[in-house]
Amino acid sequence: MPIFEQVAILGPGLLGASLAMAVRERQICERIFIWGRKEQRLENCRAMEWCDFADRDLEKVLAGSDLIVCCTPVESIQEMLREMMPKTGKDILVTDVGSVKESICTEAKQASNEESGTFIGSHPMAGSEKSGMEFASGDLFAERTCILTPMEDCPPDRTAKLVEFWELLGMQTLIESPQTHDKIVANVSHLPHLLASSLARYLSQCSKGWMAASGQGLRDTTRVAEGDSGLWLEIMKANQSKLNESLDQWMKSLEEAKEFLRQGDWENLEKFLSEAADWRESLGSGK
Amino acid sequence: MPIFEQVAILGPGLLGASLAMAVRERQICERIFIWGRKEQRLENCRAMEWCDFADRDLEKVLAGSDLIVCCTPVESIQEMLREMMPKTGKDILVTDVGSVKESICTEAKQASNEESGTFIGSHPMAGSEKSGMEFASGDLFAERTCILTPMEDCPPDRTAKLVEFWELLGMQTLIESPQTHDKIVANVSHLPHLLASSLARYLSQCSKGWMAASGQGLRDTTRVAEGDSGLWLEIMKANQSKLNESLDQWMKSLEEAKEFLRQGDWENLEKFLSEAADWRESLGSGK
Repeated sequence: MPIFEQVAILGPGLLGASLAMAVRERQICERIFIWGRKEQRLENCRAMEWCDFADRDLEKVLAGSDLIVCCTPVESIQEMLREMMPKTGKDILVTDVGSVKESICTEAKQASNEESGTFIGSHPMAGSEKSGMEFASGDLFAERTCILTPMEDCPPDRTAKLVEFWELLGMQTLIESPQTHDKIVANVSHLPHLLASSLARYLSQCSKGWMAASGQGLRDTTRVAEGDSGLWLEIMKANQSKLNESLDQWMKSLEEAKEFLRQGDWENLEKFLSEAADWRESLGSGK
Repeated sequence: MPIFEQVAILGPGLLGASLAMAVRERQICERIFIWGRKEQRLENCRAMEWCDFADRDLEKVLAGSDLIVCCTPVESIQEMLREMMPKTGKDILVTDVGSVKESICTEAKQASNEESGTFIGSHPMAGSEKSGMEFASGDLFAERTCILTPMEDCPPDRTAKLVEFWELLGMQTLIESPQTHDKIVANVSHLPHLLASSLARYLSQCSKGWMAASGQGLRDTTRVAEGDSGLWLEIMKANQSKLNESLDQWMKSLEEAKEFLRQGDWENLEKFLSEAADWRESLGSGK
């Protein structure tokens, strides 16, 4: 049963197009309206079963929408919100899918007036090292986690409605403050990415022939480094201070291991490796 | 067609048992003899289709074997070779499956006399984060790389015979000096393992609830850290100096990224991420 009349999806990239597919498949709204910057891409959207209307004119796409999901790249979300929030009416729910939340939520609050809709940040933990509409899939969100970051003064029924939306897409939901969200993702996502990238960058300077000796382990450890560098730059930029903090903290842990290795302190090195193995086992294999 | 009469496999763990399975399936020898320390485990071997004889008495297992493969944990390979090399005859080929080669090859040379068999180090790049005979599989070696590390004075026909052995198991082979081998694996295997472990160890000290926000990326980046800590300790111990060197070199690359992030030097950070992505793409996805 539809829980919204019309969902506006701004930006038909990997996440936006996957969201439109999933929303249509699960019949969550009557109409799906798409906004994008490039006419060619909008033309592609219009041919899709998951698109009822697509246009470059933001006002036309927003008109009649009771849920607006901003799926543009993270660096343009703030600009979109600045333009959009004053134009949304009281009953409208606005969210995004950006990987950082504090700067975005602050911008949405500042851009809103008394008549504006409700903004609640969302971060669906779904994606791929591939980007672009051609890799979109209606299953992208299923069985993943979505973190919602309502402001302190957010009406609980609005949060509940957005929770319902993501859960209808098969997601588990978590509610955190924007600040805590950014700290969490710095540790569980942005830091691992930077490590994988720095290992890949280092190995890119080693002899190519050596890679014949590499196995699945190296491929797994560095896989995320293949992600779109422009996109990841914007994520790191937007979460600069928290990523810096977790990098510093992790380096203390690495320095410890390095010292055990240098000094031949095998007892402590084994303890270190074994605590790491226990934790990794408890994390599980995922999908 | 069998190329050996009798293959002795010392140590029926994950690698040893998988090797026995693969050798039997591909009919590489007439008889497979197994040596192990624990009677219970030998009893299990005797019930297997890939085992013709299993005993705790090393001499009984070596007698009549024309290929001996030492599959014991890396820390006991040197001790095994010290005991075994003086007892092998001229036509016997001896190898191992250890993850480090310089110390093992040096030991084999020192333990050999004029009448001893030929030792050539082997490092089949195959394994799993699981260990033990119960996880063994005859497909473990197929389509993987095996690095062979003959001494400078090794007769080429002996190397060719061992190359033939590993290739019959479906492996690609590479020939390197023991020193170069150790440097390569420090970079493409031991360093990635230590990084994955240090990330896992660091995250084990963070809030458990945060992990609900983690995705497949974190699971991939840390997967190898689940490997047996005792086994990895021995590998790092045996390759201490070369691992230390590659850790130092990689840290220069990390420090660079850290500085770009701290200073907000986005142009260089994007270049860094993009070089990493290109390299990772060229590595391919593996199996």
